Amino acid sequence: MKVLVTGAGGFIGATLLQLLQQAGQVGHRRITRLAAMDRQLPALSGEVERIEGELQDARVQARLAQFGADVCFHLAAVPGGAAEADPVLSRRVNLDATLDLFDLLASGRAAGEAPPVVVYASSIAVYGTPLPNPVTPATPTRPALIYGAHKRACEVLLADATRRGRLDGRSLRLPGIVARPRVASGLVSAFMSELLHALAAGEPVSLPVSPQATAWWMSAQRCAENLLHAAIMDPTLDTEGHSERTWALPVLRLSMQEVVDTLSALYGVDGRALVRYAPQEQVEAVFGRYPVLDDGIARRLGLRDDGSPEELVRRALSPFS
Amino acid sequence: MKVLVTGAGGFIGATLLQLLQQAGQVGHRRITRLAAMDRQLPALSGEVERIEGELQDARVQARLAQFGADVCFHLAAVPGGAAEADPVLSRRVNLDATLDLFDLLASGRAAGEAPPVVVYASSIAVYGTPLPNPVTPATPTRPALIYGAHKRACEVLLADATRRGRLDGRSLRLPGIVARPRVASGLVSAFMSELLHALAAGEPVSLPVSPQATAWWMSAQRCAENLLHAAIMDPTLDTEGHSERTWALPVLRLSMQEVVDTLSALYGVDGRALVRYAPQEQVEAVFGRYPVLDDGIARRLGLRDDGSPEELVRRALSPFS
Repeated sequence: MKVLVTGAGGFIGATLLQLLQQAGQVGHRRITRLAAMDRQLPALSGEVERIEGELQDARVQARLAQFGADVCFHLAAVPGGAAEADPVLSRRVNLDATLDLFDLLASGRAAGEAPPVVVYASSIAVYGTPLPNPVTPATPTRPALIYGAHKRACEVLLADATRRGRLDGRSLRLPGIVARPRVASGLVSAFMSELLHALAAGEPVSLPVSPQATAWWMSAQRCAENLLHAAIMDPTLDTEGHSERTWALPVLRLSMQEVVDTLSALYGVDGRALVRYAPQEQVEAVFGRYPVLDDGIARRLGLRDDGSPEELVRRALSPFS
Repeated sequence: MKVLVTGAGGFIGATLLQLLQQAGQVGHRRITRLAAMDRQLPALSGEVERIEGELQDARVQARLAQFGADVCFHLAAVPGGAAEADPVLSRRVNLDATLDLFDLLASGRAAGEAPPVVVYASSIAVYGTPLPNPVTPATPTRPALIYGAHKRACEVLLADATRRGRLDGRSLRLPGIVARPRVASGLVSAFMSELLHALAAGEPVSLPVSPQATAWWMSAQRCAENLLHAAIMDPTLDTEGHSERTWALPVLRLSMQEVVDTLSALYGVDGRALVRYAPQEQVEAVFGRYPVLDDGIARRLGLRDDGSPEELVRRALSPFS
């Protein structure tokens, strides 16, 4: 089967690409061709077809159409802050080009063929900030960023393409993922990844939230495993009439203190001495009060969190080890 | 103030145009220029600027931008059945060109000016069929037609443009409206309008639902009055954190029998003899079991139903009389 990963040059996309190459299959079906698409791609090991360029570029779209994926993991997007700063670009990539991708994937199928599976990386940004409490499958969406609004619109339209039998869509609402590389990303949430990197290296770190600040945590490895699972899971196990094919990923809900203690034990460092808490009210409000998540349906479908704080840290810092 | 009506050649648009001409103002502000846009426009009385052509046509968009509306009532759309038969056209008009319209309205404002008001004619099609029971402001949307999916996407993106201060959006979810002209529309719901026309004329009529079939009813006149009110109402009166700026219109929930009896009394006909019920299971399921609608918030904002079955019939058959 032919598998396509868009956004394959990104943090999560690269992890997923690695997982797909290791697995060599999606469910029981062998991957015969694997394509990686992104604006820029690093050197890639193994037999991966490179499609480099902007998603909205007609030539890139022609190459994606020609590839004719059986399964597409669609991760390419203008991220939240950049989208908010450039709404026109967000519309072009996060909405228009994403819908173009859906259309070209569907148009490549002959009559009678099963529709292509599209695993769409949506975001908990569809809920807005602060997150409603609790978050359940029935929680109304109220995006507070154009990024979340475009993600929501694409969820709706992927569900519609699924209803019409054109695609087999599965939208996963991803939380923040750790541990991002230690480069300046401009993301406010970067402190969560920095905490892991710093304590693992025995370095001091300052956090813009309190020890009691509670967030949702997931490693990139587990996120990639969930994306892969989403391609083969049976959406009809969602029996609560939740017909929009969208699921928030199960998460570990942990306080900063719990994560610090876990890191301290695993790496033999004195976390309580290395971490300085300098809570900022606004950051605490958005990143420190993650509510309870009712993820029962997602778990029934086989989607999973990292299992324990120890496993979270291990997978986040040493994926696939 | 400059007022624009798109879809002004349609059943509801024409009624709204008539109301705007009669009123001469929106709230306390006098209408200095009024523009009517549609694919095709009939002869229009009074001083109305005509913008004839497709919404997705660049020349039409340029004229709309040049007009620079202070208030836009956006009703132009490819209707449900036609959209389902031509999803590409639905995307082009109901999504892409609608978002283009939002963008060009917003771009016409100088810094510091209040953003243009956009009253968007959404649809109860966003809920899907059969309608969930009850329908409340928190009811999750699950469109069962691409028409409803595109309406939903535009609601989300109009709310986002409002959040960003680019537009002042108000999305109304319109129910089926009576009494449409007695021309073959291809709409399954046309029997609701036909019932009114037939009994008022003392003619027999066959209904594809049972006497107990219960539907939501609203006259075109009341619909137009609600659209006009939506332009001046205070959305902050919606204090339940319902931040997406979407409201289902209050409706009269009446059985066929109630409507038949009302028509019989008003027009002095023997409705029970003139009406033949030939229920079709699928039609009954979609158009005969409208649930309770929790419209308390919409009423608090000043949106209204027709008041009584008698008023509904009167306004539907003799608008503005």
